[in-house]
Amino acid sequence: MDDNEFGIREGEIAVELPKDFDASLYFIGRIRTPWKKRAECPKNARESDAVCTLEVNPRWAQALSGVESCTHLVVLYWMNRSRRDLVLQAPRHYEVGRGTFALRSPARPNPIAMSVVRLVGVEGTRVSVVGLDCLDGTPLLDIKPYFASTDAFSDAVVGWHAAREK
Amino acid sequence: MDDNEFGIREGEIAVELPKDFDASLYFIGRIRTPWKKRAECPKNARESDAVCTLEVNPRWAQALSGVESCTHLVVLYWMNRSRRDLVLQAPRHYEVGRGTFALRSPARPNPIAMSVVRLVGVEGTRVSVVGLDCLDGTPLLDIKPYFASTDAFSDAVVGWHAAREK
Repeated sequence: MDDNEFGIREGEIAVELPKDFDASLYFIGRIRTPWKKRAECPKNARESDAVCTLEVNPRWAQALSGVESCTHLVVLYWMNRSRRDLVLQAPRHYEVGRGTFALRSPARPNPIAMSVVRLVGVEGTRVSVVGLDCLDGTPLLDIKPYFASTDAFSDAVVGWHAAREK
Repeated sequence: MDDNEFGIREGEIAVELPKDFDASLYFIGRIRTPWKKRAECPKNARESDAVCTLEVNPRWAQALSGVESCTHLVVLYWMNRSRRDLVLQAPRHYEVGRGTFALRSPARPNPIAMSVVRLVGVEGTRVSVVGLDCLDGTPLLDIKPYFASTDAFSDAVVGWHAAREK
């Protein structure tokens, strides 16, 4: 393992995980990105205009019909290297611990990441997009059309984050 | 079962599901809504200003720290009654089949729904929100802070849907 930043830090709190799982997922493909190590990934997706590719398993090819008409997509993917038991986290660039559900950290009970991406194009089962920041090879879970009417709230504020920037 | 609209319709196509799952989920709580049957649910979340409640399992209580400072949240939940094998779907109110990944239908390989909600308040492990349209008792998977900087694209267009409205 070249990444040891997945460990626990001072100020972080882990809980015991449930004994059993409740539901299961299929990986529907893989995400190809330019980043092979976590240290290379952009801090957030707006920092990079790299074109990444959603490689969808051929089984689901027909499910892409109509995706080409979207300007933006919601992409769900699986952060398979993250620990799942942290409730308070202390990212290195923040000063205090924060609750997992107030963070977009990949470490969470269900490490499902959500990114909104701009569609570049669809060729067969390859969907080119801009706006991802994950490792190359990350398992893909879902692709959805992004509707401005229900998904865009440009006046939204994350209070703890806004206070930090002042 | 009082809902038989989960079956397959003319123009829809199903594929064989993979033999094995690739990853597993914990339900982190339940969503309380006013809707007990699918027919009662609003067609989309903007149609209702009903206050719904995310009931988070006490195990994860500390993970809510900081959530109260957010105006909007991303909520992921599990559409546990949906079929997972449809690649082309023909929702009753649309005229032609569309690919699953071009739809927000709950029927998809991984039936994870994503909604952006407005936060009303947090009391202990109960998070009150506006903007959901799911059945009462729906399993909760994740809560994330909504960042306008990366999540809001107010000029996004879903082409097939825009064409339909003309």
